[in-house]
Amino acid sequence: MREVFHQSLEDVQSRLVEIAELVTIAIDKATRSFATSDVSLAEEVIADDAHIDERAIALDELAIEILARQQPVARDLRIVVTALRVSASIERMGDMAEHIAQLARYRFPERAVPKGLKGTFTKMGELDVEISRTLTELLRTQDLRLADTIRNTDDDIDELHASVFEKVLSDTWKGEATATVDATLASRYHERFADHAVSVAKKVVYLATGDWQADTDTIDIAIDAQAQLDEA
Amino acid sequence: MREVFHQSLEDVQSRLVEIAELVTIAIDKATRSFATSDVSLAEEVIADDAHIDERAIALDELAIEILARQQPVARDLRIVVTALRVSASIERMGDMAEHIAQLARYRFPERAVPKGLKGTFTKMGELDVEISRTLTELLRTQDLRLADTIRNTDDDIDELHASVFEKVLSDTWKGEATATVDATLASRYHERFADHAVSVAKKVVYLATGDWQADTDTIDIAIDAQAQLDEA
Repeated sequence: MREVFHQSLEDVQSRLVEIAELVTIAIDKATRSFATSDVSLAEEVIADDAHIDERAIALDELAIEILARQQPVARDLRIVVTALRVSASIERMGDMAEHIAQLARYRFPERAVPKGLKGTFTKMGELDVEISRTLTELLRTQDLRLADTIRNTDDDIDELHASVFEKVLSDTWKGEATATVDATLASRYHERFADHAVSVAKKVVYLATGDWQADTDTIDIAIDAQAQLDEA
Repeated sequence: MREVFHQSLEDVQSRLVEIAELVTIAIDKATRSFATSDVSLAEEVIADDAHIDERAIALDELAIEILARQQPVARDLRIVVTALRVSASIERMGDMAEHIAQLARYRFPERAVPKGLKGTFTKMGELDVEISRTLTELLRTQDLRLADTIRNTDDDIDELHASVFEKVLSDTWKGEATATVDATLASRYHERFADHAVSVAKKVVYLATGDWQADTDTIDIAIDAQAQLDEA
């Protein structure tokens, strides 16, 4: 029984890694489709998001089954509840990739990237892919130093996000309303993607150390879900 | 012991209702502060969001404690896990209210509502308050017909959301980039608020009936903002 239980927990972890890998593929394709107006790439991302959703639901079911059958306590209980929380955030990262792909598809054959922001969005896209890869590694290896890397990458993405608004709201901005809307939404999706990664990383660190890394980012969706693990 | 357990489950439910009530107050104040550029009202919302977050965390702690100590099974287990998921969504509704208030405060003493969209945002604000009230009632009474009301209200909000983009992207739109950015973000926050309410309502219905209504919330979260954009 004990053996079976540990097998289940490992299964939870490997499924999280698998979903994170799918999300990395999605954000890579999404940001490339957005940058290059590749509509067929965008459509792949949109079609594949359903798989990510299914995997996340299956993982949740597994977690609930473990709770019901094996009634874990203490650290094991925390692992299972954390998996439930984390899977929702990773699934949302997939949604953000899909949103970016939808922007690319909608504007096609026009370019979705507003003039003057190509460099910024290319860089944001690369950093989103990077943060997703690092998150996958963190989930796989539990090497907590990777959480710092994720936070640093998120800081870089936040800076780029701010620079988009600076640009759009500057006197030199010549974009039409369409370009302004696209820049606003695209930038927010890129930034939210990274926020979710930070949120997941915090939960992983908390699970391992019991240390909740306070952060000034009060808008972070992370805050809600994790302190719950306190008493578990 | 059995007695204590049922007490705990009731406690979970009443705490969810309490948080939903706080969110209703928040969205009411936020949308009014946004419509009228009332910066002190906006600041109340921003300050009060921390309370909502705290309550949600406390509820999560209670849920985890119940899992650890009472090891519920079957339906009781589903109630506790649903509460964990629902509390995160309700807390996010509070965040959306805060985002709307932040827009109001940020633009002050200028008006945050772009010209030509005052009527639309007033209506969206009223519908967000309405959906939040209905959700609170649903959580309190478990009257599942209210889930339909919530879905209908969400449809109305989605229409208004689409009309914002239609307006902003039309030839008659004379707004500066600032107004375009504000309209885009404000409309998205209003619409996301309602999406979370629908997501919570579906989970409540699922808990009661085992029937997952058609489109999974992950999909409709994904589609909403962008499908609107497609129409615009």
